[in-house]
This record gives sequence, structure tokens and C-alpha cells, in this order.
Amino acid sequence: MIDNTITDTSRIKDARFLSKIIKADDAAALIGDGSTVGFSGFVGAGSPLYVPLAIAKKAENLHELGKPYKINIYSGASTDVDLDGALARAKAVGFRTPFNTDPNMRACINSGETKYLDVHLSSLAWQVEAGYFGNMDFAVIEISGITENGELIPTTSVGNNQAWLNYADKIILELNIHQPKELDGFHDVYLQPLPPHRDPIPLKTARDRIGTPYMKVDFSKVVGIVLSSTEDRLNKFTPLDDISIAIGDHVVDFLKIEETAGRLPKGKLLPLQSGIGNVANAVLAGLQRAGYRGLDCYSEVIQDGMLELIKNGVVDFASASALSLSPDGVKDFRANVEFYKEHIVLRPQEISNSPEVIRRLGVIAMNGMLEADIYGNVNSTNVMGTQIMNGIGGSGDFARNGYLSIFLTPSMAKGGAISAIVPFVSHLDHTEHDSMVIVTEYGFADLRGLSPKERAKKMIAIAHPDYRQMLQDYFDRACSEPKAGHTPHILSEALSWHDRYKKTGTMKI
Amino acid sequence: MIDNTITDTSRIKDARFLSKIIKADDAAALIGDGSTVGFSGFVGAGSPLYVPLAIAKKAENLHELGKPYKINIYSGASTDVDLDGALARAKAVGFRTPFNTDPNMRACINSGETKYLDVHLSSLAWQVEAGYFGNMDFAVIEISGITENGELIPTTSVGNNQAWLNYADKIILELNIHQPKELDGFHDVYLQPLPPHRDPIPLKTARDRIGTPYMKVDFSKVVGIVLSSTEDRLNKFTPLDDISIAIGDHVVDFLKIEETAGRLPKGKLLPLQSGIGNVANAVLAGLQRAGYRGLDCYSEVIQDGMLELIKNGVVDFASASALSLSPDGVKDFRANVEFYKEHIVLRPQEISNSPEVIRRLGVIAMNGMLEADIYGNVNSTNVMGTQIMNGIGGSGDFARNGYLSIFLTPSMAKGGAISAIVPFVSHLDHTEHDSMVIVTEYGFADLRGLSPKERAKKMIAIAHPDYRQMLQDYFDRACSEPKAGHTPHILSEALSWHDRYKKTGTMKI
Repeated sequence: MIDNTITDTSRIKDARFLSKIIKADDAAALIGDGSTVGFSGFVGAGSPLYVPLAIAKKAENLHELGKPYKINIYSGASTDVDLDGALARAKAVGFRTPFNTDPNMRACINSGETKYLDVHLSSLAWQVEAGYFGNMDFAVIEISGITENGELIPTTSVGNNQAWLNYADKIILELNIHQPKELDGFHDVYLQPLPPHRDPIPLKTARDRIGTPYMKVDFSKVVGIVLSSTEDRLNKFTPLDDISIAIGDHVVDFLKIEETAGRLPKGKLLPLQSGIGNVANAVLAGLQRAGYRGLDCYSEVIQDGMLELIKNGVVDFASASALSLSPDGVKDFRANVEFYKEHIVLRPQEISNSPEVIRRLGVIAMNGMLEADIYGNVNSTNVMGTQIMNGIGGSGDFARNGYLSIFLTPSMAKGGAISAIVPFVSHLDHTEHDSMVIVTEYGFADLRGLSPKERAKKMIAIAHPDYRQMLQDYFDRACSEPKAGHTPHILSEALSWHDRYKKTGTMKI
Repeated sequence: MIDNTITDTSRIKDARFLSKIIKADDAAALIGDGSTVGFSGFVGAGSPLYVPLAIAKKAENLHELGKPYKINIYSGASTDVDLDGALARAKAVGFRTPFNTDPNMRACINSGETKYLDVHLSSLAWQVEAGYFGNMDFAVIEISGITENGELIPTTSVGNNQAWLNYADKIILELNIHQPKELDGFHDVYLQPLPPHRDPIPLKTARDRIGTPYMKVDFSKVVGIVLSSTEDRLNKFTPLDDISIAIGDHVVDFLKIEETAGRLPKGKLLPLQSGIGNVANAVLAGLQRAGYRGLDCYSEVIQDGMLELIKNGVVDFASASALSLSPDGVKDFRANVEFYKEHIVLRPQEISNSPEVIRRLGVIAMNGMLEADIYGNVNSTNVMGTQIMNGIGGSGDFARNGYLSIFLTPSMAKGGAISAIVPFVSHLDHTEHDSMVIVTEYGFADLRGLSPKERAKKMIAIAHPDYRQMLQDYFDRACSEPKAGHTPHILSEALSWHDRYKKTGTMKI
């Protein structure tokens, strides 16, 4: 809900900016049909909310008059329900990239209402700068303040904010006075120029600071500042279920084996990346139960569970691109902000997801997935090969470059109608060259060093028992085909499980 | 053929090593059944040849006596016919990684005689060091000399040589006195430690030297030095055919457009990587015809065509991991060695293929492929989804991290029975997130910024005319499916083209 009565300008320390204050509707009025807009926002944190709502209202009004109105949206990652959700419901989005979790936007993409480009989170900003996608007309960026020198203080995410500020022709700032002032100092803003002018990224540990705490902005491009007061609306945590806990325990068992074998530094592991959601939280909880202390995280998002681990000393330092907290998490964060400032840094996604940095630090990458096939190929994006879920996000950045690449999933979905282990993935996002370990509640499949046929044995063993015999039968018959080859398949049957699900509602025969 | 009469030890400047000289058969005798051996060799260049032949002979003798004998082979990339070929014919290889082009070895892998691990060329060495694949018993490395300080001078490839010298328990050196002495000075050996001890790789241009010209070896691990005299046996160049020339011209047209649009530095482009073979050579020839001068290459292999371009000034500097020349190329190289030393450097494949360096330099990646689907997913490795061809090699390192990722292929194979553009790839090595431009003799499909359905139009347009209507028909019907979604497919038909080829010998209906 837009509150047009906010007048608190105390966070604007550079008086030049005061003259730019406008209402959200005025900001929306500037953004014409067909505009390309770079929004702030990463995993629901730090999105502007008033301007998108005003744009949605404008779109609905125009559509009622029979007039066309759609914009193209670039973001950091997923945004708030008042950004992707409101604009999708208004059918106001022609193009969307790089990542979305809003169900309304997802429906628009799958129906063809909105075109969607699925791109690695580390790559979008430089590809925009390189001119691969045409001009960016507007940046709409949430900030928590403006310094005396006219620099911008980010809020709960850094994402692609600095990049959009650099590349967009015109800039609209949304100054959210609800965001804690104490966010000042949590950010480390560093971007690279395009080749041939790139230097090594001088980051050697998760805790290094290599940039500036503030974002730079060309004042002459600022066409409006909208005052807002609203909080990130993030889902509450759901308690861990047994399956997630079992998956988390298998991950910890695997890491313990690696440590004992001398393949990971004792007691300290290597910097952890974990995705979002229940399974990721279960892994973190498992690490705590296993007695780990002083770990580093080099990840994309800090959620409530991570704050807990920092307080407990399990995690000593966490680097990410966003602080994506529930209302309870925000309360804790505000109450202990100076403590957390010693243990958290927020970076642009070009750095949090940098292949260079991930490989250098030796990150242990842990990501969810939709399905994997018997040879370890992974589908993270398209349900039944056709319906986009969220996008690849940062999973490719981390899985390809991680010291260990672990994928996690419950063995079944839809009450058992879908097996997460299938003969042939219906869409492929992470190849057999990048998936090292796959984990379900039935154990982990360590695929390192194995040829495809050896991998199949390991993968079938972690499938749900309801599907193991079917997988074994497929594999055996594939191996018996004439000229079965290096990667045996029965091509006429490889996608039959997905086809059966579409036709009968279950993969089971 | 092994020549046991060589006695020239003049290239051994550290006298300690003289006591280690043994015959190839004695070296083979040291390598027991089940041993894991790291060989030098990258795209046929710089493989040891005497020791592998002696191992093959030993294996054949043991097999005749009914005794088992197989070794596990790690290399840089593909090796000589007297290494992979001889050992495969002797059925002496239990495990092979990371890349092979020998038809005998390919047959062993596809029949299951040999297990094969397909891994990115940039990743194998550190994964071996990390202990992911168990112990390495022997390194067998070709050298061209030993310095007074006991350092080793590589020959025509660097590959994983230093890594194998570091990790293997025992070392056998093959000193090839046929390799030009003047190779001294062409190499830049630099390896990274494992995390958490990695620093930024301090390489900022293709021509930077960051390491040492020689390889280090622990003398106490050296169990033998075999004197050899043999040349790299590399295929002669075949003249360019019309299809390759057309593909090369389309690539140059595309690069010209990028340059004109300001998306590439004018006249200089960015460092080029190009694969091997006819199509890659056609691209280089096209660049020469287009009048480019002073280009840089940051690639894996330098072939005859590159020497030509260096002499002509089209290429000013070429960085690679191997110098893979025909006999005529070797003659030219020897005649102009001091000139070439100013324009060429050979690096370990961990550096030539480094994701960090490739992204920093902004390499223009150009790689061949087997097939692509209508959405731009690429199969580089498994024919009809099951039969391994060569492996992924460095294509993933370059395609994922390149400033531009271009894939090249003739539109048909097997006299028209196979279309290179298919509804659904039968194996997937490079995802839609990484393939930017696909080129056939019918033009280029610039997929950047496009949603899947938009990509399909571009891909169908570059398919062979014989297959365009079939592709269009599949795509149209997929789009008409109920809930067609973001990536439309008819799952029961997606792999039917490959299935038909297997059953009828052609993809055509």
C-alpha cells in the first residue's frame, strides 16, 4: 500500500537531492510503454515497492482504456510480491530476467504473456553493459539513505543495483525510511569494467572488503526520489520436516567423510554456499548439530537460519548479496546490528556469484533441484521440461566453480507421483561434468571419478524405493541395447516417465 | 617404433639424472597392473611415445599368458596414436580421462572395455590434487631437456605435466631429442595450490608471463629417464571445403556487426579461442580475408593455420597449452623459432582454460559441436545420446566464461541423414544459458536476450533446408500442446529423430 504522506527527509544528507522528491504516481508517469527498467531486489529483499505498485495501477488504468502498456523488467533476482506479483497481475510485463519466484509472474511466463530470459546471476550485469540486450531506460533502486557526498546507501540487497545505476538513462530512487539506518556499513560495492580492462578481483577470503560501502550515482540522471516506508515481505520459516532433516544429515555425513579423508580442511571446511528454503536450512542445522564452529559462508542470501548460526558461533562470517529476513529475523537483526556488522557483508551479485572468486575460495556449493537423471544430469528450472519454475539463478555459478558441487532434493514430489530421479532429465541445467554429489533423504550419491554406468548404480540407490526397480529396469534394458555405448539410453523411452505423468498424473506404471 | 640405440645425453645438464637412464621396456616393467599413470600430451602434442608402446607390448604379452593387465590413464587432452591408440589396441586401459580422439580408444570406451570420465580440461588437475580420484602412481612426461638446476624443459605441450609431476608417487621422464632444443623459453609454468590457499591468477593479457619457463621435479621421485627420438604424429591439414568457408564467413560477418555496434573493440576484437579442425581454420582464414591485424588469441592449441596468421601479422600473440603442428608446420616452426618465441606462450591447461582468466580477458569462444536443439542447448560429446565422440574438452571452460560463446557446425552430417539442429538434444553439454550464437553454413543464430520461443525461430532458420519444415512442424505442434509452457516440447516425440536414425539410418521421415 502506497503511503503518500511521508515527509521525513532526514536521511537525505546531500541537499541537492531534496528537489527531486516526487510521488510514486509521478514516477510511474515517467515510465512509458515499452520501457526497460532495472529494479533493485534480490530474493525478495531490497525491492522498491511504491513505484512498482504505481506502475501496476497505471497499467491497469491504461488497459481499461484499451491502451497497451508493458515494461521490461531486469532485477537482481526474485523480488517482492508488490513488484513481480503486482506487475504480473496487471499484465504489465513484456520481458523479465533473470530470476523470479512469484507465482503470478511464473504464470505469465508460462502462458507466453511475458517473455523470460534465464541467465546466470553472475552474468546479467556485464551482458547488459556490453549492450547485448539493448538500452536500459530506467533504474528504480531502493535505498536507505543518501550521504553528504551524494552517495547512495543500499538497503537489504546489493544485487545489480550499482550496475543499473551505471547503465540506465534515468534513475528513480525509492528511499525507504522503514529500512534500518544501521544498514550503513554492511555493503561492499565493487564492479568490474568490461574487457579488455578487467583486473583480477582482489578478494581472497569471504570476509575481504574490496570496494566502497556506498553506491555511486550520476546526479544529473536522477529524475525522482520517492519516499517510502515499507518492510520486505518475506515468508515466515516453516519448521523442518523429516525429509529435509534426513537430507541435511546426509550432507553432514558426506562432509565429515571428506574431512576425515583429508579432502577438506579439518574443523573449518571451506566457505559454504547454500540455496534457500527448507532443505538448505536443514543442512545448516545439521552442521550446528555436528559441532562445527567458526565456518565461513560465501553465498547469495542470508536468511534467518544464518543469523542464528552467527549468534551461536557456528558461522563466523557470511558474505552474500542479500539479507532476506522474516519479520522476526528483522527484529533480531535490528536488536543486534552492531554485532552482525562484524560478521556479514553484502556484495554485488557479480562478486557474490563470481566464477573467479568461487573457484579461488573453493566454495562448497549446495543447491536444490527439480530432478536428476541416472547419469547425474540436473534439471533446476523446467517442470516436465516445459513449465518454468524460478530460473537457474546462481546455481550454475556455484555448481560449475565450486570445490564440491552438491545437489539436494527430496526423492519424490506430488505425493509420490513424480520421482526426482528419472531416466533422462526433461530439461538440463547442470551437466554430468558439474554435478559431483546428489543427495536425497535416502543418502548421497558420490559421482566423482565415475563413468556413466557406475554413476547410474549410485543414483538408483538414492531414488525412492517406489521407483528403484523401474529405474533399474530401464538401465538394464538400455545397457542391453545393440551398441549401448558410453551413456546407455533407450531413446524411445527416455522421456516416457514425464510423458506418462502429463497423461496420467503419475510417473508410476 | 622404439629405438633403443639412442645415447645422446647432451641435453641432460644436471649430472644426477644420468644415473636414471633406462630403456623403455624397463620403464614399462615398473608399471604394474592397476597402476594409475599421468601422461603428458595435449591434442596429440608432447605425448611420451616409447614408454606407452613398451607398456602396450607388456600388456599384450601378459594377456597372451592369460594374465590381467590394465592401467588407468590421465592426460592433458588427446594423445598420440602410439599412446591412446597402442594401449587401446592392447586392451590395456581400465580407465581414461579427460579427453580422447583416438578411434581405438573411443571403441574401448563405447564397448565398456575402458571406463571414461568426461571432465572440463581446467578442472582435472586440481581434482586429482584434491584426492577425488585416489592416488596417482606414476607420471610419464615427455621433456626436451634438463637444466643445470634439475628443472625440466617441456616439449610441445604443457597440459597437466607439472600437476602430474607434483602428484605422482614415481616419475618416468621421456627425453625426446627429436623435439627442437629451441622450445626452451616457450613455456610459462604456473599452478595454483588448493583452496583455501589460492591467490588471484595475476594474468591480465594473453601475453603476460606469470610463472617459470621450466617444470620442477622432486629428483627423489624420478625412477627412470628414457631417451627417445620421435616426432609428434599429427594429421596433415586438409584443404578447406565450401561448407567450412561459409561457416567461417558467417562468424566474421557476426563479429563485424558486433564491432560496428560498439560491442567489440574496433579492429582488435577480444582474445580469440578457436577449437581444432577445418571449421576453426576456416574462421581464422576468414579473419585474415576480412583484414584484421594484430589480434590476440587465448586458446588451447596452436595449429599450422595460427603460425601462418602470426607470420602475416593477423595474429600478434597466441597463448595456448600445446603446439600441435603437422610435419610441414614443424619445419616452419624450426626455421623461424626465434620469431615465434616473441609471439607464442604455452601454459598449463589450468591456466589456458581458467574460468577466471577467460572471463577477465573477455575471450571470444568458438567451438564445434555435434548438434543443437531448437532452444540452443548443445551436445558436444555423445552421438545419438549414447556413443562418446571425444569428450567435452575445453569447450565448457570457454563457452561458459567467454565474452561471446559461439558454436559452429555444418547443418547436416552423414550425407544428410543427420540434422545438426534437432527438436531436443540427445545429450547435453552446454545449456541454453551458455550458448549465445550458433553458426551453420546457412547463417548465424544470435540467441542473446531471446526467450526460448524466439530462439526456436532463429535456430530453424539456420537448419538445413531439408529439415526446416520438419523442425517448424515440431515446434508449431509443441506450441499447440495444452499448457505448452515456457519451453514447448512434445515429450513423446522429442527424441524421435534420433530414434528414427538408429532404426532407419536417417532422421528424415
